[in-house]
Amino acid sequence: MGKKKRIGIIGATGYTGSELVRILVNHPEVEIALITSESRAGEKFSDIHTSFRGIVDIVLQPASQVEQTDLDLVFLALPHGVSMDFVKKYHQKPFKIIDLSGDFRLDSPEIYHEWYQKGHVYKEGFDSAVFGLPELNREHIKQSELVANPGCFPTTAILGLAPLLSEGMIESRGIIVDSKTGVTGAGVKPKEVTHFPNVNDNFKAYGLKKHRHTIEIQDTLNKLSSDEVNLQFTPHLLPVDRGILSTIYARPVKEVTTADLNALYLRYYEGHPFVRITPEAPSIKDVRASNYCNIYITHDERTGNIMVLSVIDNLVKGAAGQAIQNMNLMLGFDETAGLKQAPLNP
Amino acid sequence: MGKKKRIGIIGATGYTGSELVRILVNHPEVEIALITSESRAGEKFSDIHTSFRGIVDIVLQPASQVEQTDLDLVFLALPHGVSMDFVKKYHQKPFKIIDLSGDFRLDSPEIYHEWYQKGHVYKEGFDSAVFGLPELNREHIKQSELVANPGCFPTTAILGLAPLLSEGMIESRGIIVDSKTGVTGAGVKPKEVTHFPNVNDNFKAYGLKKHRHTIEIQDTLNKLSSDEVNLQFTPHLLPVDRGILSTIYARPVKEVTTADLNALYLRYYEGHPFVRITPEAPSIKDVRASNYCNIYITHDERTGNIMVLSVIDNLVKGAAGQAIQNMNLMLGFDETAGLKQAPLNP
Amino acid sequence: MGKKKRIGIIGATGYTGSELVRILVNHPEVEIALITSESRAGEKFSDIHTSFRGIVDIVLQPASQVEQTDLDLVFLALPHGVSMDFVKKYHQKPFKIIDLSGDFRLDSPEIYHEWYQKGHVYKEGFDSAVFGLPELNREHIKQSELVANPGCFPTTAILGLAPLLSEGMIESRGIIVDSKTGVTGAGVKPKEVTHFPNVNDNFKAYGLKKHRHTIEIQDTLNKLSSDEVNLQFTPHLLPVDRGILSTIYARPVKEVTTADLNALYLRYYEGHPFVRITPEAPSIKDVRASNYCNIYITHDERTGNIMVLSVIDNLVKGAAGQAIQNMNLMLGFDETAGLKQAPLNP
Amino acid sequence: MGKKKRIGIIGATGYTGSELVRILVNHPEVEIALITSESRAGEKFSDIHTSFRGIVDIVLQPASQVEQTDLDLVFLALPHGVSMDFVKKYHQKPFKIIDLSGDFRLDSPEIYHEWYQKGHVYKEGFDSAVFGLPELNREHIKQSELVANPGCFPTTAILGLAPLLSEGMIESRGIIVDSKTGVTGAGVKPKEVTHFPNVNDNFKAYGLKKHRHTIEIQDTLNKLSSDEVNLQFTPHLLPVDRGILSTIYARPVKEVTTADLNALYLRYYEGHPFVRITPEAPSIKDVRASNYCNIYITHDERTGNIMVLSVIDNLVKGAAGQAIQNMNLMLGFDETAGLKQAPLNP
Repeated sequence: MGKKKRIGIIGATGYTGSELVRILVNHPEVEIALITSESRAGEKFSDIHTSFRGIVDIVLQPASQVEQTDLDLVFLALPHGVSMDFVKKYHQKPFKIIDLSGDFRLDSPEIYHEWYQKGHVYKEGFDSAVFGLPELNREHIKQSELVANPGCFPTTAILGLAPLLSEGMIESRGIIVDSKTGVTGAGVKPKEVTHFPNVNDNFKAYGLKKHRHTIEIQDTLNKLSSDEVNLQFTPHLLPVDRGILSTIYARPVKEVTTADLNALYLRYYEGHPFVRITPEAPSIKDVRASNYCNIYITHDERTGNIMVLSVIDNLVKGAAGQAIQNMNLMLGFDETAGLKQAPLNP
Repeated sequence: MGKKKRIGIIGATGYTGSELVRILVNHPEVEIALITSESRAGEKFSDIHTSFRGIVDIVLQPASQVEQTDLDLVFLALPHGVSMDFVKKYHQKPFKIIDLSGDFRLDSPEIYHEWYQKGHVYKEGFDSAVFGLPELNREHIKQSELVANPGCFPTTAILGLAPLLSEGMIESRGIIVDSKTGVTGAGVKPKEVTHFPNVNDNFKAYGLKKHRHTIEIQDTLNKLSSDEVNLQFTPHLLPVDRGILSTIYARPVKEVTTADLNALYLRYYEGHPFVRITPEAPSIKDVRASNYCNIYITHDERTGNIMVLSVIDNLVKGAAGQAIQNMNLMLGFDETAGLKQAPLNP
Repeated sequence: MGKKKRIGIIGATGYTGSELVRILVNHPEVEIALITSESRAGEKFSDIHTSFRGIVDIVLQPASQVEQTDLDLVFLALPHGVSMDFVKKYHQKPFKIIDLSGDFRLDSPEIYHEWYQKGHVYKEGFDSAVFGLPELNREHIKQSELVANPGCFPTTAILGLAPLLSEGMIESRGIIVDSKTGVTGAGVKPKEVTHFPNVNDNFKAYGLKKHRHTIEIQDTLNKLSSDEVNLQFTPHLLPVDRGILSTIYARPVKEVTTADLNALYLRYYEGHPFVRITPEAPSIKDVRASNYCNIYITHDERTGNIMVLSVIDNLVKGAAGQAIQNMNLMLGFDETAGLKQAPLNP
Repeated sequence: MGKKKRIGIIGATGYTGSELVRILVNHPEVEIALITSESRAGEKFSDIHTSFRGIVDIVLQPASQVEQTDLDLVFLALPHGVSMDFVKKYHQKPFKIIDLSGDFRLDSPEIYHEWYQKGHVYKEGFDSAVFGLPELNREHIKQSELVANPGCFPTTAILGLAPLLSEGMIESRGIIVDSKTGVTGAGVKPKEVTHFPNVNDNFKAYGLKKHRHTIEIQDTLNKLSSDEVNLQFTPHLLPVDRGILSTIYARPVKEVTTADLNALYLRYYEGHPFVRITPEAPSIKDVRASNYCNIYITHDERTGNIMVLSVIDNLVKGAAGQAIQNMNLMLGFDETAGLKQAPLNP
C-alpha cells in the first residue's frame, strides 16, 4: 500500500460534510488532512457532531488554511451560490475538486441563472466541470480536475431513465418523475418545513413545477436521447431521515415486455457495482447508509405504461458516497474503495 | 330534538369499527345500541380499545344479536368477502345498511371476481347498492337502503378527478394516480408489512398494477366521462398512521390555466361541506382526524400537465367519517352532524 | 341555552393558541370573539394554521383590540416573561383571565426569579392567582378571576403523586419523576433541538437537574404533604408530536399492596371526570387529543417500591384542554363542556 | 495476513442474525462459511434480507450442516429456550460458541427457571459459560470456549453502574434503572405490540416488575458489589428502530462531586475502546449502528442523587457487535477489528 492521499473537506457543519467524514474515516487509501468551517473554526469536529467523539477529534480550520496545506483532493460541501467562489479560487491549485453543490451541474451560466435565480461568478468552470455520475461518465471523471457531483433527486431519476432514453424506447415527452425524499435533503439548518411536528406523521408535495433538480434531470437525459426530453418532476417530503424513492412513469414507443426491460437494465448496468436491478419493488431501507441505487422496472399491459422505481440514500449515493465514488475514479483507486458497507436495515 | 336513532356496528375490533365509535359517541342524533364481535363477545369495547375506558364500556355481543335489537341503521365494519354474507342476510331487515367493505362497490359480480379473485354470494346486492360518495351521489344516497361506502384511495382519486372528467377537460387515458397512504389502511392485524421496523424510516410502493382500488376508481370515473377512462394507480406505504395523499397527473384536451381550473373546482364542489379547494399544496395533517378532503389543482405551462393533489384521513373521509356522512343523508340529518371536528394538527 | 360567552385568545401562532381554537370552535357555551397576534395581525387565523381553512377564518387582531372588545374571559397563550405584562395590564378589566404561561404558577416572585432567571414585573399577581389544577383546586378556581394554568409535566407528576402525599403514604424525599414528552412541548418555533433529523429515530434526556417544572411540581406537592417534598425530575424528548408519560418511583412509609393503592386512587379521584385509574400500564395514545389523564399504580414486593405511571396529551390536559376545563369552572358551565372527545388512537 | 477464520451463523432470519452478517461481511479476519435457517433453508440469505442482494447471496443451510462444515466459531442467533439445545449439542465440537440468547447468562439453572419460567436442558453449560461483557471479563472471554452474550438492557445498566458499585460509592439497594428501547429489541416477528400504529407516535412501559433482564443486571452487579444489590428495572418502548437509553438513579454513600464521578469513570474505562464518557447527555443516535456505549454521569446537589445516562445500539453493542467484540477476543484479533464504523447520525 502506497502513501495515503491527503483530503480536504470544505464545510463541516452540514450533513454532506459529516457524511463525507463518516465514510472517509475508514477509507483504506486516504487520510483526512483538513476540515474547515468558518463559523466553528477552533472547535473540534466532534464538538459539533458529537457521535464522532473519540473517532474524529480534528480541530476545524478556517478555509484560508486550504492553501497552506498539502492536499490531493478537496470536497466542497457548501451551499450553492457559495461554492462557485471557492471553485473559482481553487481551480488552478494543485489539487482536484469535487463540488457537491449545484453550481456546476447545469449546461450553462444562463440556465443556472434561470433556475437558481442567481448570477454565476465563474462561467469558465462550466467548460471543465464533469457531471459526476460514474454510471454515465466514468471515463471522463477519471480524467477530470473538477467534478460537479449530481443532485440527489437527479441521481435516482437519471439512473432510472438512462437505459430507456439511450435506447430510444420511450416517448421523450410526458415522462413523470414522482419523487419522495427524507428530510436530510433539506439540510442541517432548522426551518419551519423541517420542524418535527410539521413533518412527523405528515406528508406533502413541495417545489411543484419549479424545483431546480428538474432542469438537472432533463438536461442530463437530453444528452442521452435523440428526441428532446420534457418531464414533470414532483418532490414530496417523507417523515424519514434518509432516502429517496422515485416512481417514474413513461410511455413505450413500441411493444415491450417486463422481461425485455429487465434484460436491458441488467445489460446497461453491467460492471457498475452500485446499481442493483431488483426482482421486487425496493424500499428506501434496502439501500440506507449505503452507496447502492436499487432499480425495479415493469410494464403494465393494461395501461401500456412503463414504471421504474429507483431508490438511493440521499446522503450517500445522492451526495457523499457518490462524491467518494468519484474521488476513487479521479485518484485511480478501486471504484468501491471505502464504500463496501452493506445497507442498514432496519 | 326527537328520539335518537339506534345504530348497530358489526365488527368492533378493527380500525373502522373503533373510528365509527369515536365519532358516533358524540353524534347529536344517534345512540350506539349494539356493537358486535364474534371473537371478543362478552368483553367490553374498552377492553379491546383501551383509550375508550370510561367512555364506551358497552359489552360486545355476537352478531346474532342484531336481529333481536331494535335498530335504525347498521354499519358493517367487516373484511371484504365476509361482509357480503351479512348484507345478504340483513338486506330485507327493517334497518338501513352501510357496508364499509369492498363487496358492493364495483359494477358487477364478474368484475368483483376478476379483481378480488373471489366469487360473490349475493349478486342481487349490486342492483340496489349505491356507491356512497356524497359529492357525486347525494340524492341517491338519501333514498338508499344499502350504501357501499367507497374505498380510501378511490375517495381521493375520484374527488380529485371528477370535475375534470365530468367537463371533458382531460384525456381519459393516460391518467396517473400516484398515492401514498398511512399504515392504518392495512388494518389492525399485525403483518410483516406493518411490523414497525419494516415501516419506520422506510417507504415503498406495493400492489403495483393490480391493486383492487384501481378498478373502483376507473369504473366510477367512467360514469362521469364521455370517453373511456384508463388509469394507472400506484399505492405507496408511508410511515404514518393516518392519511392519504394522491398526486394525480393528467393531460388537458385544450388550453387551460390554473385560474380556470380553480374556478371549475370551486364551482363543482360548491355546497359540499367537506371538500376544500386550497390555495396551497395540502399536507395530510391538514385533514387528520377530520372528514375533509383538501384538493389543490394546478397547470404546468412548461410541460402542459395538469396536477391535482388530493388528501384525506383514510379512516375518516376514507372510511368511518364518510360512512357517517352517508348515514346523515340516509336518516335525514344535517350532512355535517357529528362531523364538525377541526383537523388535529399537529 | 343562554347567550354564548365571549372569549378572547391572546397569542394565535403557537400550539396552545391553535389548540384552544380547535377545542373552542365546537364548545356549546362560548364563541371566539377575538384572536390576537402581533406578528401576523391582518392575516386570517387559517392562513397560519391551514388546517382551519373554512372553519376558523377570523382575521387576527393586534392585542390592542382586547380593550375595545366585549369579552367574558381571556386566554393568554404567550411565552413566559411576556405573559406577566398582559396580566398586569388586564387584571382590573371586566373579564376573567387564564394564563397558560409559567408566570404565576410558583409561590413567590423570588422563587420565580431563581428558577426562571428573570425578574417579575407584577408581584401582586401572585396573591390572586389560583393554580389551575381542577382536581386539587376546583372550588378556588370557580371563584377566581386569574388562573395560572399548570405546566404539562407538573400535571402528570402532581396528579400521579397527590393521593400518596396527601395520605402520607410515601417518603417525601427521594421521589423520582422520570418523564418523557412529545416535541410540541418545545413550541412552534423551529430550533436545533426540534429539527426533524435530530428527533426522529432518536431519544435523549434534557434539562437535567434544573428544569423549571421541578419547582412547580415540588412546591405544589409540598402543600399536600406534611413533610417537605424533595424530588428528582428528569425530562426526555420522544420522537412523537403529543403526549407525556411520567414514570414515578416512591418509597412507602409502611406496608402497602397494589390493591390498597388502587382503592386509594379510585377514591381520591372520584367525581373527577378526566382522571382514569387504569388496570393496565397506559400509553400516550390512550389519551391523545383528549383531556384525560390516565394513571396506573403498582407496588413491587421484590424491591418495595411504589410505581406510578401517569399520561396526558401535553397540549390538551397539559395546556389548552385544562385551560378550558378551568374556563368551564370559572364561567359556571359543566366541567366537561366541549371536552368530551374520545382520544384519537391510532 | 493469515488465513481467514471460518464463521458459522445459526439462525438467519432474525435481526441479530442479519446484523452479524452486516458487520462480518467487512471483517478483515474472518469469512462467513455457513448461515443456517430451518424455515428458509434453500433460499438465499438475500431473498430474506433483500438489502443484501449482490452482497451476501449465500444459500441458507439447515443446521444439520454445522457438523459437516469446517468452522472456527459459531454464533447462535436463536430464541432463548431453543439455543440451549444447540449449545448442548455443540459444546464438545472443535469450534467456539457465542450464544446470543439468554440461556446461559444467569448464575444457575434454578434462577433461569424462576425468571424464564422454563426448565433448562443443559445445566453443565452454566459452569463453562463466560458472561460476555468485555469491559468486565476481557481476560476470561479470551480463554473461553462458550460465551453468553449479554442482554441489551443489561449492557447499558451494567456498564452504567459498574464503576459505582465496584468502588462501593452508592447504596446497593434502591437503585432505579428506567430504560427506553427501540422496537427491534422485540424481534423480527410481527406482533400486536410491534404493529406500526401501536408504536408510532406512541410510548409506554412494559414488563413492569418482572422483566427477565432485571435478574441479569442484578446478579452481574452483585458480583462487583460488597453489599447485596436490589434494583428496580423498568423498560419502555420507543417509536424508534434501534437504541437503548437507560436513565439510572442511585444514592451516594458519602459526599461526591460530578468531577469525582467523571474521573472515576474515565479511569475505570481506560483502555476500553467502546466506552465513551461524554461531557453532554447522550442521545441514542450518538451511537446508532456502532458498537459504542456512551455514558454520562452527574451528581445533583439539590437532591443528592447520582444520575447515569447510558446509551447503546441494542443490535450492535447490545447484541451482534458485542458478540463480534467477543469473537475478536476469543480468536486473538484486535478487539476493534471489523467494528470501527462511526455511528450513523442522522
